[in-house]
Amino acid sequence: MSNNNHGKNGDQPVIPPFDRDFAIEKYNPAHTGGMSKEQALEEIVPLRTRLNDLQNVLYADRRFSILVILQGIDTAGKDGTINSVFQVVGPLGCHVANFGVPNEEELAHDYMWRYHKQCPERGKIAIFNRSYYEAVLVERVKEIVPPSTWRERYDEINAFERYLDDQHTVVMKFFLHISKDEQRERLQERVDNPRKQWKFRSGDIDERRNWDTYQSAFEDMVRKCNTRHAPWHVVPADRKWYRDVVVARALVERLEQLDLKYPQTAEGVAGLKVV
Amino acid sequence: MSNNNHGKNGDQPVIPPFDRDFAIEKYNPAHTGGMSKEQALEEIVPLRTRLNDLQNVLYADRRFSILVILQGIDTAGKDGTINSVFQVVGPLGCHVANFGVPNEEELAHDYMWRYHKQCPERGKIAIFNRSYYEAVLVERVKEIVPPSTWRERYDEINAFERYLDDQHTVVMKFFLHISKDEQRERLQERVDNPRKQWKFRSGDIDERRNWDTYQSAFEDMVRKCNTRHAPWHVVPADRKWYRDVVVARALVERLEQLDLKYPQTAEGVAGLKVV
Repeated sequence: MSNNNHGKNGDQPVIPPFDRDFAIEKYNPAHTGGMSKEQALEEIVPLRTRLNDLQNVLYADRRFSILVILQGIDTAGKDGTINSVFQVVGPLGCHVANFGVPNEEELAHDYMWRYHKQCPERGKIAIFNRSYYEAVLVERVKEIVPPSTWRERYDEINAFERYLDDQHTVVMKFFLHISKDEQRERLQERVDNPRKQWKFRSGDIDERRNWDTYQSAFEDMVRKCNTRHAPWHVVPADRKWYRDVVVARALVERLEQLDLKYPQTAEGVAGLKVV
Repeated sequence: MSNNNHGKNGDQPVIPPFDRDFAIEKYNPAHTGGMSKEQALEEIVPLRTRLNDLQNVLYADRRFSILVILQGIDTAGKDGTINSVFQVVGPLGCHVANFGVPNEEELAHDYMWRYHKQCPERGKIAIFNRSYYEAVLVERVKEIVPPSTWRERYDEINAFERYLDDQHTVVMKFFLHISKDEQRERLQERVDNPRKQWKFRSGDIDERRNWDTYQSAFEDMVRKCNTRHAPWHVVPADRKWYRDVVVARALVERLEQLDLKYPQTAEGVAGLKVV
Protein backbone atom coordinates (compact mmCIF):
# COMPACT_ATOMS: atom_id res chain seq x y z
CA MET A 1 0.00 0.00 0.00
CA SER A 2 1.59 3.27 -1.04
CA ASN A 3 1.28 6.44 0.92
CA ASN A 4 -0.75 7.89 -1.97
CA ASN A 5 -3.72 5.93 -0.71
CA HIS A 6 -3.73 8.08 2.38
CA GLY A 7 -4.60 11.72 2.73
CA LYS A 8 -7.83 11.65 0.78
CA ASN A 9 -10.17 11.19 3.70
CA GLY A 10 -9.18 13.81 6.23
CA ASP A 11 -12.81 14.01 7.26
CA GLN A 12 -13.06 10.36 8.28
CA PRO A 13 -14.08 9.82 11.86
CA VAL A 14 -11.06 9.27 14.05
CA ILE A 15 -12.59 6.35 15.87
CA PRO A 16 -14.76 3.95 13.92
CA PRO A 17 -18.09 3.29 15.62
CA PHE A 18 -18.24 -0.51 15.37
CA ASP A 19 -17.28 -0.45 11.72
CA ARG A 20 -16.98 -4.08 10.65
CA ASP A 21 -16.33 -2.93 7.09
CA PHE A 22 -13.25 -1.08 8.26
CA ALA A 23 -10.84 -0.42 5.38
CA ILE A 24 -7.45 0.78 6.49
CA GLU A 25 -6.85 2.89 3.38
CA LYS A 26 -9.85 5.06 4.22
CA TYR A 27 -8.08 6.30 7.30
CA ASN A 28 -5.58 9.08 6.87
CA PRO A 29 -2.66 8.60 9.30
CA ALA A 30 -1.81 12.31 8.99
CA HIS A 31 -5.32 13.40 9.99
CA THR A 32 -5.32 16.10 12.69
CA GLY A 33 -9.03 16.79 13.12
CA GLY A 34 -8.41 20.35 12.00
CA MET A 35 -6.22 20.88 15.02
CA SER A 36 -2.93 22.76 15.10
CA LYS A 37 0.08 21.47 16.99
CA GLU A 38 -0.25 24.38 19.44
CA GLN A 39 -3.90 23.56 20.13
CA ALA A 40 -3.04 19.91 20.72
CA LEU A 41 -0.18 20.68 23.09
CA GLU A 42 -2.54 22.93 25.02
CA GLU A 43 -5.37 20.40 25.17
CA ILE A 44 -3.20 17.48 26.29
CA VAL A 45 -2.23 19.17 29.58
CA PRO A 46 -5.68 19.19 31.26
CA LEU A 47 -6.46 15.78 29.73
CA ARG A 48 -3.45 14.26 31.52
CA THR A 49 -4.54 15.81 34.81
CA ARG A 50 -8.13 14.71 34.34
CA LEU A 51 -6.96 11.16 33.58
CA ASN A 52 -4.97 11.20 36.82
CA ASP A 53 -8.02 12.37 38.80
CA LEU A 54 -10.05 9.58 37.24
CA GLN A 55 -7.33 7.04 38.07
CA ASN A 56 -7.42 8.14 41.72
CA VAL A 57 -11.15 7.60 42.00
CA LEU A 58 -10.89 4.35 39.99
CA TYR A 59 -8.50 3.10 42.65
CA ALA A 60 -10.68 4.26 45.55
CA ASP A 61 -13.83 2.87 43.90
CA ARG A 62 -12.34 -0.62 43.29
CA ARG A 63 -15.12 -1.86 41.04
CA PHE A 64 -13.38 -1.70 37.65
CA SER A 65 -10.02 -2.49 36.06
CA ILE A 66 -8.79 -0.79 32.90
CA LEU A 67 -6.85 -2.66 30.24
CA VAL A 68 -5.29 -0.35 27.65
CA ILE A 69 -3.96 -2.11 24.54
CA LEU A 70 -1.57 -0.40 22.14
CA GLN A 71 -0.84 -1.94 18.77
CA GLY A 72 0.94 -0.53 15.75
CA ILE A 73 3.77 -1.28 13.39
CA ASP A 74 7.41 -0.66 14.45
CA THR A 75 7.98 3.06 15.19
CA ALA A 76 4.21 3.74 15.34
CA GLY A 77 4.78 5.42 18.72
CA LYS A 78 3.54 3.01 21.37
CA ASP A 79 6.21 4.08 23.89
CA GLY A 80 5.76 7.75 23.10
CA THR A 81 1.99 7.54 23.59
CA ILE A 82 2.41 5.93 27.00
CA ASN A 83 4.97 8.53 28.08
CA SER A 84 2.77 11.41 27.05
CA VAL A 85 -0.76 10.29 27.96
CA PHE A 86 0.16 8.74 31.31
CA GLN A 87 2.70 11.41 32.27
CA VAL A 88 0.65 12.74 35.19
CA VAL A 89 -0.86 9.38 36.16
CA GLY A 90 2.70 8.17 36.71
CA PRO A 91 4.13 4.76 37.56
CA LEU A 92 2.12 4.43 40.77
CA GLY A 93 -1.18 4.66 38.91
CA CYS A 94 -0.56 2.31 36.03
CA HIS A 95 1.54 -0.66 35.07
CA VAL A 96 3.11 -1.13 31.62
CA ALA A 97 3.48 -4.69 30.37
CA ASN A 98 5.84 -5.07 27.43
CA PHE A 99 5.52 -8.25 25.42
CA GLY A 100 8.49 -9.37 23.35
CA VAL A 101 9.39 -12.73 21.88
CA PRO A 102 7.88 -15.36 24.23
CA ASN A 103 10.29 -17.36 26.38
CA GLU A 104 10.29 -21.14 26.79
CA GLU A 105 7.87 -21.17 29.72
CA GLU A 106 5.47 -18.88 27.86
CA LEU A 107 5.68 -20.94 24.69
CA ALA A 108 4.85 -24.05 26.71
CA HIS A 109 1.48 -22.50 27.61
CA ASP A 110 -1.58 -21.51 25.61
CA TYR A 111 -0.95 -18.21 23.79
CA MET A 112 -3.23 -16.15 26.09
CA TRP A 113 -1.51 -17.28 29.29
CA ARG A 114 1.22 -14.69 29.57
CA TYR A 115 -1.20 -11.86 28.76
CA HIS A 116 -3.85 -12.95 31.23
CA LYS A 117 -1.18 -13.02 33.96
CA GLN A 118 -0.58 -9.28 33.45
CA CYS A 119 -4.24 -8.24 33.42
CA PRO A 120 -4.99 -5.48 35.93
CA GLU A 121 -6.47 -6.03 39.37
CA ARG A 122 -9.56 -4.03 40.35
CA GLY A 123 -8.83 -0.33 40.73
CA LYS A 124 -5.76 -0.48 38.48
CA ILE A 125 -4.79 0.41 34.92
CA ALA A 126 -2.59 -1.97 32.93
CA ILE A 127 -1.12 -0.84 29.64
CA PHE A 128 -0.23 -3.57 27.18
CA ASN A 129 2.61 -2.44 24.93
CA ARG A 130 1.76 -5.04 22.25
CA SER A 131 -0.69 -7.73 23.32
CA TYR A 132 -2.37 -11.01 22.40
CA TYR A 133 -3.15 -9.35 19.07
CA GLU A 134 0.42 -10.30 18.12
CA ALA A 135 -1.06 -13.78 17.74
CA VAL A 136 -2.89 -12.48 14.64
CA LEU A 137 -0.18 -10.01 13.58
CA VAL A 138 3.46 -11.09 13.74
CA GLU A 139 2.51 -14.77 13.97
CA ARG A 140 0.43 -14.39 10.82
CA VAL A 141 2.84 -12.19 8.87
CA LYS A 142 5.91 -14.28 9.64
CA GLU A 143 3.94 -17.51 9.17
CA ILE A 144 4.84 -18.72 12.66
CA VAL A 145 1.47 -20.50 12.72
CA PRO A 146 -0.58 -21.75 9.74
CA PRO A 147 -3.63 -19.74 8.54
CA SER A 148 -6.01 -22.32 10.03
CA THR A 149 -4.58 -21.46 13.45
CA TRP A 150 -4.56 -17.65 13.34
CA ARG A 151 -7.99 -17.55 11.68
CA GLU A 152 -9.53 -19.17 14.76
CA ARG A 153 -7.96 -16.63 17.05
CA TYR A 154 -10.20 -13.65 16.27
CA ASP A 155 -13.19 -15.42 17.81
CA GLU A 156 -11.08 -16.60 20.75
CA ILE A 157 -9.89 -13.06 21.38
CA ASN A 158 -13.43 -11.70 21.16
CA ALA A 159 -14.58 -14.31 23.65
CA PHE A 160 -11.73 -13.48 26.02
CA GLU A 161 -12.49 -9.77 25.83
CA ARG A 162 -16.16 -10.43 26.47
CA TYR A 163 -15.17 -12.41 29.54
CA LEU A 164 -12.95 -9.53 30.74
CA ASP A 165 -15.77 -7.07 30.18
CA ASP A 166 -18.14 -9.29 32.19
CA GLN A 167 -15.57 -9.18 35.02
CA HIS A 168 -15.61 -5.36 34.99
CA THR A 169 -12.32 -5.06 33.14
CA VAL A 170 -12.79 -2.24 30.65
CA VAL A 171 -10.81 -3.03 27.50
CA MET A 172 -9.59 0.03 25.53
CA LYS A 173 -7.80 -0.79 22.28
CA PHE A 174 -5.77 1.67 20.24
CA PHE A 175 -4.35 0.95 16.80
CA LEU A 176 -1.65 3.56 16.11
CA HIS A 177 -1.85 4.09 12.37
CA ILE A 178 1.18 5.61 10.61
CA SER A 179 2.06 5.96 6.94
CA LYS A 180 4.88 4.10 5.24
CA ASP A 181 6.66 7.42 4.61
CA GLU A 182 6.45 8.34 8.26
CA GLN A 183 7.95 4.99 9.24
CA ARG A 184 10.84 5.56 6.84
CA GLU A 185 11.56 8.92 8.46
CA ARG A 186 11.44 7.48 11.95
CA LEU A 187 13.73 4.56 11.08
CA GLN A 188 16.13 6.96 9.38
CA GLU A 189 16.15 9.07 12.54
CA ARG A 190 17.17 5.98 14.52
CA VAL A 191 20.06 5.40 12.14
CA ASP A 192 21.20 9.02 12.13
CA ASN A 193 20.75 9.99 15.80
CA PRO A 194 23.56 8.53 17.96
CA ARG A 195 21.21 8.56 20.97
CA LYS A 196 18.64 6.44 19.12
CA GLN A 197 20.95 4.16 17.14
CA TRP A 198 20.88 1.46 19.81
CA LYS A 199 17.15 1.03 19.13
CA PHE A 200 17.79 0.19 15.51
CA ARG A 201 17.99 -3.46 14.57
CA SER A 202 18.73 -4.67 11.07
CA GLY A 203 15.56 -6.75 11.49
CA ASP A 204 13.63 -3.46 11.30
CA ILE A 205 14.45 -3.24 7.60
CA ASP A 206 13.32 -6.83 6.98
CA GLU A 207 10.09 -6.11 8.83
CA ARG A 208 9.55 -3.00 6.71
CA ARG A 209 9.54 -5.21 3.59
CA ASN A 210 6.44 -6.88 5.07
CA TRP A 211 4.61 -3.52 5.22
CA ASP A 212 1.66 -4.55 3.02
CA THR A 213 1.17 -7.87 4.76
CA TYR A 214 1.16 -6.10 8.11
CA GLN A 215 -1.43 -3.60 6.86
CA SER A 216 -3.73 -6.47 5.88
CA ALA A 217 -3.23 -8.08 9.26
CA PHE A 218 -4.01 -4.81 11.07
CA GLU A 219 -7.08 -4.36 8.91
CA ASP A 220 -8.40 -7.82 9.78
CA MET A 221 -7.61 -7.27 13.44
CA VAL A 222 -9.77 -4.13 13.53
CA ARG A 223 -12.47 -5.59 11.31
CA LYS A 224 -12.93 -8.83 13.21
CA CYS A 225 -12.36 -7.65 16.76
CA ASN A 226 -14.11 -4.31 16.75
CA THR A 227 -16.82 -5.38 19.17
CA ARG A 228 -19.33 -3.42 21.19
CA HIS A 229 -17.71 -4.40 24.50
CA ALA A 230 -14.16 -3.74 23.26
CA PRO A 231 -14.08 -1.41 20.25
CA TRP A 232 -10.90 -0.59 18.36
CA HIS A 233 -9.83 3.03 18.23
CA VAL A 234 -8.00 3.78 15.00
CA VAL A 235 -5.62 6.59 15.87
CA PRO A 236 -4.03 8.77 13.15
CA ALA A 237 -0.47 8.64 14.44
CA ASP A 238 1.75 10.47 11.94
CA ARG A 239 1.44 13.58 14.12
CA LYS A 240 2.49 12.59 17.62
CA TRP A 241 0.72 15.55 19.24
CA TYR A 242 -2.62 14.65 17.67
CA ARG A 243 -2.19 10.95 18.41
CA ASP A 244 -1.75 11.71 22.12
CA VAL A 245 -4.85 13.90 22.25
CA VAL A 246 -6.98 11.23 20.52
CA VAL A 247 -5.90 8.52 22.96
CA ALA A 248 -6.22 10.72 26.05
CA ARG A 249 -9.67 11.98 25.02
CA ALA A 250 -10.93 8.43 24.48
CA LEU A 251 -9.66 7.26 27.86
CA VAL A 252 -11.10 10.23 29.74
CA GLU A 253 -14.45 9.85 28.00
CA ARG A 254 -14.68 6.13 28.78
CA LEU A 255 -13.64 6.51 32.40
CA GLU A 256 -16.16 9.29 32.89
CA GLN A 257 -18.91 6.93 31.71
CA LEU A 258 -18.13 4.53 34.55
CA ASP A 259 -19.59 6.89 37.17
CA LEU A 260 -16.71 6.20 39.56
CA LYS A 261 -17.19 7.26 43.17
CA TYR A 262 -15.14 7.67 46.30
CA PRO A 263 -16.49 5.13 48.80
CA GLN A 264 -18.81 6.42 51.48
CA THR A 265 -17.50 7.21 54.94
CA ALA A 266 -17.03 4.10 57.06
CA GLU A 267 -19.01 3.91 60.29
CA GLY A 268 -17.39 5.96 63.04
CA VAL A 269 -14.71 7.63 60.91
CA ALA A 270 -16.34 11.02 60.27
CA GLY A 271 -15.36 13.48 62.98
CA LEU A 272 -12.78 11.13 64.51
CA LYS A 273 -9.98 12.92 66.33
CA VAL A 274 -6.50 11.39 65.83
CA VAL A 275 -4.31 11.63 68.95
CA MET B 1 9.53 9.10 71.18
CA SER B 2 8.08 12.59 71.42
CA ASN B 3 8.57 15.18 68.76
CA ASN B 4 10.66 17.15 71.26
CA ASN B 5 13.52 14.78 70.62
CA HIS B 6 13.62 16.09 67.09
CA GLY B 7 14.61 19.49 65.88
CA LYS B 8 17.85 19.73 67.84
CA ASN B 9 20.13 18.46 65.15
CA GLY B 10 19.20 20.41 62.05
CA ASP B 11 22.84 20.25 61.03
CA GLN B 12 22.99 16.45 60.93
CA PRO B 13 23.95 15.04 57.56
CA VAL B 14 20.89 14.09 55.60
CA ILE B 15 22.33 10.77 54.54
CA PRO B 16 24.45 8.86 57.04
CA PRO B 17 27.78 7.73 55.53
CA PHE B 18 27.81 4.09 56.67
CA ASP B 19 26.91 5.05 60.24
CA ARG B 20 26.49 1.81 62.16
CA ASP B 21 25.89 3.80 65.34
CA PHE B 22 22.86 5.41 63.74
CA ALA B 23 20.48 6.81 66.37
CA ILE B 24 17.12 7.79 64.98
CA GLU B 25 16.57 10.62 67.49
CA LYS B 26 19.62 12.44 66.15
CA TYR B 27 17.86 12.92 62.83
CA ASN B 28 15.43 15.77 62.56
CA PRO B 29 12.48 14.78 60.34
CA ALA B 30 11.72 18.47 59.75
CA HIS B 31 15.25 19.19 58.50
CA THR B 32 15.29 21.16 55.23
CA GLY B 33 19.01 21.65 54.66
CA GLY B 34 18.47 25.39 54.87
CA MET B 35 16.29 25.20 51.80
CA SER B 36 13.03 27.09 51.27
CA LYS B 37 9.99 25.43 49.74
CA GLU B 38 10.36 27.67 46.67
CA GLN B 39 13.99 26.61 46.18
CA ALA B 40 13.05 22.94 46.52
CA LEU B 41 10.18 23.19 44.04
CA GLU B 42 12.58 24.85 41.62
CA GLU B 43 15.35 22.29 42.07
CA ILE B 44 13.13 19.24 41.70
CA VAL B 45 12.18 20.09 38.09
CA PRO B 46 15.62 19.64 36.45
CA LEU B 47 16.33 16.68 38.78
CA ARG B 48 13.29 14.85 37.40
CA THR B 49 14.38 15.53 33.83
CA ARG B 50 17.96 14.49 34.56
CA LEU B 51 16.71 11.26 36.16
CA ASN B 52 14.72 10.54 33.01
CA ASP B 53 17.80 11.14 30.80
CA LEU B 54 19.76 8.76 33.00
CA GLN B 55 16.98 6.16 32.81
CA ASN B 56 17.08 6.33 29.01
CA VAL B 57 20.81 5.66 28.86
CA LEU B 58 20.47 3.00 31.62
CA TYR B 59 18.05 1.19 29.34
CA ALA B 60 20.25 1.56 26.25
CA ASP B 61 23.37 0.54 28.19
CA ARG B 62 21.80 -2.66 29.63
CA ARG B 63 24.57 -3.37 32.12
CA PHE B 64 22.84 -2.34 35.35
CA SER B 65 19.48 -2.65 37.09
CA ILE B 66 18.29 -0.21 39.73
CA LEU B 67 16.32 -1.33 42.76
CA VAL B 68 14.82 1.58 44.71
CA ILE B 69 13.46 0.66 48.14
CA LEU B 70 11.12 2.95 50.06
CA GLN B 71 10.37 2.30 53.71
CA GLY B 72 8.64 4.45 56.29
CA ILE B 73 5.81 4.35 58.77
CA ASP B 74 2.17 4.78 57.60
CA THR B 75 1.69 8.21 55.96
CA ALA B 76 5.47 8.74 55.65
CA GLY B 77 4.92 9.57 51.98
CA LYS B 78 6.09 6.56 49.99
CA ASP B 79 3.44 7.04 47.29
CA GLY B 80 3.98 10.79 47.16
CA THR B 81 7.73 10.38 46.73
CA ILE B 82 7.26 7.99 43.81
CA ASN B 83 4.75 10.31 42.14
CA SER B 84 7.03 13.31 42.44
CA VAL B 85 10.52 11.92 41.82
CA PHE B 86 9.55 9.62 38.95
CA GLN B 87 7.06 12.03 37.36
CA VAL B 88 9.13 12.56 34.21
CA VAL B 89 10.57 9.02 34.09
CA GLY B 90 6.99 7.78 33.85
CA PRO B 91 5.49 4.31 33.85
CA LEU B 92 7.48 3.16 30.83
CA GLY B 93 10.80 3.78 32.56
CA CYS B 94 10.14 2.20 35.92
CA HIS B 95 7.95 -0.39 37.59
CA VAL B 96 6.40 0.04 41.04
CA ALA B 97 5.95 -3.11 43.11
CA ASN B 98 3.59 -2.70 46.07
CA PHE B 99 3.85 -5.30 48.79
CA GLY B 100 0.88 -5.81 51.06
CA VAL B 101 -0.09 -8.69 53.30
CA PRO B 102 1.35 -11.84 51.67
CA ASN B 103 -1.12 -14.26 50.08
CA GLU B 104 -1.22 -18.01 50.60
CA GLU B 105 1.20 -18.82 47.77
CA GLU B 106 3.67 -16.20 49.01
CA LEU B 107 3.43 -17.42 52.60
CA ALA B 108 4.18 -20.94 51.42
CA HIS B 109 7.58 -19.73 50.16
CA ASP B 110 10.68 -18.35 51.86
CA TYR B 111 10.13 -14.69 52.80
CA MET B 112 12.43 -13.31 50.09
CA TRP B 113 10.69 -15.15 47.25
CA ARG B 114 8.00 -12.65 46.36
CA TYR B 115 10.48 -9.77 46.44
CA HIS B 116 13.09 -11.49 44.30
CA LYS B 117 10.41 -12.15 41.68
CA GLN B 118 9.90 -8.40 41.25
CA CYS B 119 13.58 -7.45 41.04
CA PRO B 120 14.38 -5.42 37.93
CA GLU B 121 15.82 -6.81 34.72
CA ARG B 122 18.97 -5.19 33.30
CA GLY B 123 18.32 -1.67 32.03
CA LYS B 124 15.25 -1.21 34.24
CA ILE B 125 14.31 0.55 37.47
CA ALA B 126 12.07 -1.23 39.97
CA ILE B 127 10.62 0.71 42.89
CA PHE B 128 9.68 -1.33 45.95
CA ASN B 129 6.88 0.38 47.84
CA ARG B 130 7.72 -1.48 51.07
CA SER B 131 10.09 -4.42 50.71
CA TYR B 132 11.69 -7.42 52.38
CA TYR B 133 12.52 -5.02 55.22
CA GLU B 134 8.94 -5.62 56.39
CA ALA B 135 10.35 -8.94 57.61
CA VAL B 136 12.23 -6.96 60.29
CA LEU B 137 9.57 -4.25 60.71
CA VAL B 138 5.90 -5.26 60.83
CA GLU B 139 6.78 -8.90 61.51
CA ARG B 140 8.89 -7.81 64.47
CA VAL B 141 6.53 -5.14 65.82
CA LYS B 142 3.42 -7.27 65.57
CA GLU B 143 5.32 -10.35 66.80
CA ILE B 144 4.38 -12.35 63.73
CA VAL B 145 7.70 -14.17 64.10
CA PRO B 146 9.76 -14.70 67.30
CA PRO B 147 12.86 -12.53 67.97
CA SER B 148 15.18 -15.43 67.16
CA THR B 149 13.73 -15.41 63.64
CA TRP B 150 13.79 -11.70 62.82
CA ARG B 151 17.24 -11.25 64.39
CA GLU B 152 18.72 -13.62 61.80
CA ARG B 153 17.20 -11.69 58.96
CA TYR B 154 19.51 -8.66 59.00
CA ASP B 155 22.44 -10.81 57.93
CA GLU B 156 20.31 -12.62 55.39
CA ILE B 157 19.17 -9.32 53.90
CA ASN B 158 22.75 -8.01 53.77
CA ALA B 159 23.83 -11.19 52.00
CA PHE B 160 20.98 -10.90 49.51
CA GLU B 161 21.82 -7.27 48.78
CA ARG B 162 25.48 -8.15 48.32
CA TYR B 163 24.42 -10.81 45.83
CA LEU B 164 22.26 -8.25 43.96
CA ASP B 165 25.15 -5.79 43.91
CA ASP B 166 27.44 -8.48 42.49
CA GLN B 167 24.88 -9.01 39.73
CA HIS B 168 25.00 -5.30 38.81
CA THR B 169 21.72 -4.50 40.54
CA VAL B 170 22.26 -1.16 42.26
CA VAL B 171 20.28 -1.11 45.51
CA MET B 172 19.13 2.37 46.66
CA LYS B 173 17.35 2.40 50.02
CA PHE B 174 15.39 5.33 51.41
CA PHE B 175 13.96 5.51 54.92
CA LEU B 176 11.34 8.27 54.96
CA HIS B 177 11.54 9.68 58.45
CA ILE B 178 8.56 11.66 59.78
CA SER B 179 7.70 12.90 63.27
CA LYS B 180 4.85 11.59 65.38
CA ASP B 181 3.15 15.00 65.18
CA GLU B 182 3.36 15.01 61.41
CA GLN B 183 1.77 11.55 61.28
CA ARG B 184 -1.08 12.75 63.47
CA GLU B 185 -1.72 15.63 61.07
CA ARG B 186 -1.65 13.38 58.04
CA LEU B 187 -4.00 10.81 59.59
CA GLN B 188 -6.35 13.61 60.66
CA GLU B 189 -6.34 14.88 57.06
CA ARG B 190 -7.44 11.43 55.91
CA VAL B 191 -10.33 11.51 58.37
CA ASP B 192 -11.38 15.05 57.50
CA ASN B 193 -10.93 15.10 53.70
CA PRO B 194 -13.79 13.21 51.97
CA ARG B 195 -11.44 12.43 49.04
CA LYS B 196 -8.91 10.78 51.35
CA GLN B 197 -11.26 9.11 53.81
CA TRP B 198 -11.29 5.82 51.89
CA LYS B 199 -7.56 5.51 52.64
CA PHE B 200 -8.21 5.59 56.37
CA ARG B 201 -8.48 2.28 58.18
CA SER B 202 -9.24 1.98 61.87
CA GLY B 203 -6.11 -0.21 61.98
CA ASP B 204 -4.11 2.99 61.35
CA ILE B 205 -4.90 4.12 64.89
CA ASP B 206 -3.85 0.77 66.37
CA GLU B 207 -0.60 0.93 64.40
CA ARG B 208 0.03 4.45 65.68
CA ARG B 209 0.01 3.07 69.26
CA ASN B 210 3.06 1.02 68.22
CA TRP B 211 4.97 4.19 67.27
CA ASP B 212 7.92 3.67 69.63
CA THR B 213 8.33 0.00 68.75
CA TYR B 214 8.34 0.92 65.06
CA GLN B 215 11.00 3.58 65.67
CA SER B 216 13.25 0.98 67.32
CA ALA B 217 12.69 -1.39 64.44
CA PHE B 218 13.53 1.32 61.88
CA GLU B 219 16.64 2.22 63.86
CA ASP B 220 17.87 -1.37 63.87
CA MET B 221 17.07 -1.72 60.19
CA VAL B 222 19.30 1.25 59.33
CA ARG B 223 21.98 0.31 61.85
CA LYS B 224 22.34 -3.31 60.80
CA CYS B 225 21.79 -3.02 57.06
CA ASN B 226 23.61 0.18 56.26
CA THR B 227 26.28 -1.49 54.17
CA ARG B 228 28.83 -0.13 51.75
CA HIS B 229 27.17 -1.86 48.77
CA ALA B 230 23.64 -0.84 49.81
CA PRO B 231 23.63 2.16 52.17
CA TRP B 232 20.48 3.48 53.79
CA HIS B 233 19.48 7.05 53.04
CA VAL B 234 17.68 8.61 55.98
CA VAL B 235 15.37 11.17 54.46
CA PRO B 236 13.84 13.97 56.56
CA ALA B 237 10.27 13.63 55.35
CA ASP B 238 8.10 16.06 57.33
CA ARG B 239 8.48 18.53 54.45
CA LYS B 240 7.36 16.75 51.30
CA TRP B 241 9.19 19.18 49.01
CA TYR B 242 12.53 18.61 50.74
CA ARG B 243 12.02 14.85 50.92
CA ASP B 244 11.57 14.70 47.14
CA VAL B 245 14.73 16.72 46.50
CA VAL B 246 16.81 14.50 48.82
CA VAL B 247 15.65 11.30 47.11
CA ALA B 248 16.01 12.68 43.58
CA ARG B 249 19.49 14.07 44.26
CA ALA B 250 20.68 10.73 45.66
CA LEU B 251 19.35 8.81 42.66
CA VAL B 252 20.86 11.19 40.12
CA GLU B 253 24.20 11.17 41.89
CA ARG B 254 24.35 7.37 42.05
CA LEU B 255 23.30 6.88 38.44
CA GLU B 256 25.89 9.40 37.29
CA GLN B 257 28.60 7.34 39.01
CA LEU B 258 27.75 4.34 36.86
CA ASP B 259 29.24 5.95 33.75
CA LEU B 260 26.35 4.77 31.60
CA LYS B 261 26.81 4.91 27.83
CA TYR B 262 24.78 4.56 24.70
CA PRO B 263 26.05 1.44 22.93
CA GLN B 264 28.40 1.94 20.02
CA THR B 265 27.09 1.82 16.50
CA ALA B 266 26.53 -1.69 15.21
CA GLU B 267 28.48 -2.73 12.14
CA GLY B 268 26.91 -1.33 8.97
CA VAL B 269 24.30 0.88 10.62
CA ALA B 270 26.02 4.27 10.43
CA GLY B 271 25.11 6.02 7.21
CA LEU B 272 22.47 3.44 6.30
CA LYS B 273 19.74 4.80 4.07
CA VAL B 274 16.23 3.53 4.91
CA VAL B 275 14.06 3.07 1.83
